[in-house]
Amino acid sequence: MNKLAVIALGGNALLKSGQKGTISEQEENIFEACNEVAYLLEQGYNLVISHGNGPQVGNVMLQHEAGFKVFDIPKQPMDICVAETQGSIGYMIEQQMRNVLFERGVKKNIVTLITQVLVSENDPAFKNPAKPVGPYYTVEEKDHMLEQGWKFKEDPRGRGWRRVVASPLPKEISNWEIVEKLAREGNIVITAGGGGIPAYIKKTGRLEGIDAVIDKDLASATLASNIKADAFFIITDISHVMVNFNTPEQKELHNVSVKEMEKHLEDKQFTEGSMAPKVRAGIQFVANGGKETVITDASNLKEENSGTRIN
Amino acid sequence: MNKLAVIALGGNALLKSGQKGTISEQEENIFEACNEVAYLLEQGYNLVISHGNGPQVGNVMLQHEAGFKVFDIPKQPMDICVAETQGSIGYMIEQQMRNVLFERGVKKNIVTLITQVLVSENDPAFKNPAKPVGPYYTVEEKDHMLEQGWKFKEDPRGRGWRRVVASPLPKEISNWEIVEKLAREGNIVITAGGGGIPAYIKKTGRLEGIDAVIDKDLASATLASNIKADAFFIITDISHVMVNFNTPEQKELHNVSVKEMEKHLEDKQFTEGSMAPKVRAGIQFVANGGKETVITDASNLKEENSGTRIN
Repeated sequence: MNKLAVIALGGNALLKSGQKGTISEQEENIFEACNEVAYLLEQGYNLVISHGNGPQVGNVMLQHEAGFKVFDIPKQPMDICVAETQGSIGYMIEQQMRNVLFERGVKKNIVTLITQVLVSENDPAFKNPAKPVGPYYTVEEKDHMLEQGWKFKEDPRGRGWRRVVASPLPKEISNWEIVEKLAREGNIVITAGGGGIPAYIKKTGRLEGIDAVIDKDLASATLASNIKADAFFIITDISHVMVNFNTPEQKELHNVSVKEMEKHLEDKQFTEGSMAPKVRAGIQFVANGGKETVITDASNLKEENSGTRIN
Repeated sequence: MNKLAVIALGGNALLKSGQKGTISEQEENIFEACNEVAYLLEQGYNLVISHGNGPQVGNVMLQHEAGFKVFDIPKQPMDICVAETQGSIGYMIEQQMRNVLFERGVKKNIVTLITQVLVSENDPAFKNPAKPVGPYYTVEEKDHMLEQGWKFKEDPRGRGWRRVVASPLPKEISNWEIVEKLAREGNIVITAGGGGIPAYIKKTGRLEGIDAVIDKDLASATLASNIKADAFFIITDISHVMVNFNTPEQKELHNVSVKEMEKHLEDKQFTEGSMAPKVRAGIQFVANGGKETVITDASNLKEENSGTRIN
């Protein structure tokens, strides 16, 4: 039986810093990333792919803002914006992965699912929203939106005010049983894009979207545990996690236990909002019974046992 | 074994004419439509749901236009716009169908797939693009975009120039085998939204998106034939197809053969861009071996043998 892997593609696999986000830039980046990910097929893995959506969902929110100003089109809430990026990015990954497999002569179905992720309304994150999203607003715009319950933080570089939303923990990834079944049958499944569409169960029992951003690596780790994946790959833009970064004692981490990694986290070795959440997601998967998390860049996937391995 | 049905939800099931498209309007419309569609479960059908995206993809294109003007965000091509609406509308249908099943005490998985639909680069429709999409442009804007290969038609009511794109025939619905398998296993599958993301195979063998709009009823009919559905439901805003519409001889059609329906089409009984393409899609399914196409409104689904039936 094939092994099962979850691969979380970072935003930079889709859109490199400095790029504006044209379709041809994104297609080229994604083809390259898929071409590297395909090496895991040669290593006998069945694949589930998740992905970030940072720059894309930022653009969608700006487009909604502009569409409201110019054409009076109602702005849509964040769950809808995330759903839109799951559609567009999922499509691009599916299409480029089809092209990669075509060129390698590999026959596999590739399916992209729109994915809700359950969060708790009582998650403490909702008490202290901290994740900035969308455009910069003027004081007047901010004051107007405060009335509608939005929260804001002032940009430290003076560019205005930015909306902040909660980043609650993922509780359950919708349709993970189907994801597992499809993947174990040999299909490549793309799911949980952008950390998933945040939704919660209301007191009436009905499901509803909520304005929040779920960390895509934590959502992917939760998915990897749900489907009992053998390995969880977090793809970022560096080959290894480093300690003592940017000091003479800078050191690549290769094989690290959960305990050691937790110590490094306590010692604040990793940047919040960047490597720290990836390390936490990596730890979560192994602490919940997963065999191994690998944090590395896409070009390292062709080498077995490369990157930083938490096990 | 359960019977299998494909249900194509018309745009008005999602957004009623006169509504602006806020999230609460759409959620309410979709909950209502799903509540009616759920009667087909009681009649022993497994369900595959497709849907239109007319007003939504129109808004997405306007938002991209405004985002480019206000924030200099690159506009995305039509395949990406369709993919975005598959994400947002698919999500809303999946969520509201979950709520409907919850309230009825029915346990079923509901999965939403992002769906490419293959078209031919040589489809005659590309020689004569006729489907208007996106915003109205001034003469200067039009002339600028003509250089980039866009085609335009002047609005007869003087609102400016509108881009026209081709509406090629759907050749193959991606992942139809998986759709069939999931649906026959009892899962509700949402797929082929907005007629599918138009894509073609380039001379290199690579798959690529193309600026076009695929008729959602024709795409759904093709899907229904692919998965050997027992019935194909086209949901619109009237209970029956009519002949001699708006004359004293106006008559509801109940059970009609393919031959009779083709005769009505020849006699130009149905409006192009409205009922005529639905009738053509309905004929296509039965002519390709399907048992029955039903054209009706959602509230008629609770009655077996209601609506206009082509068989």
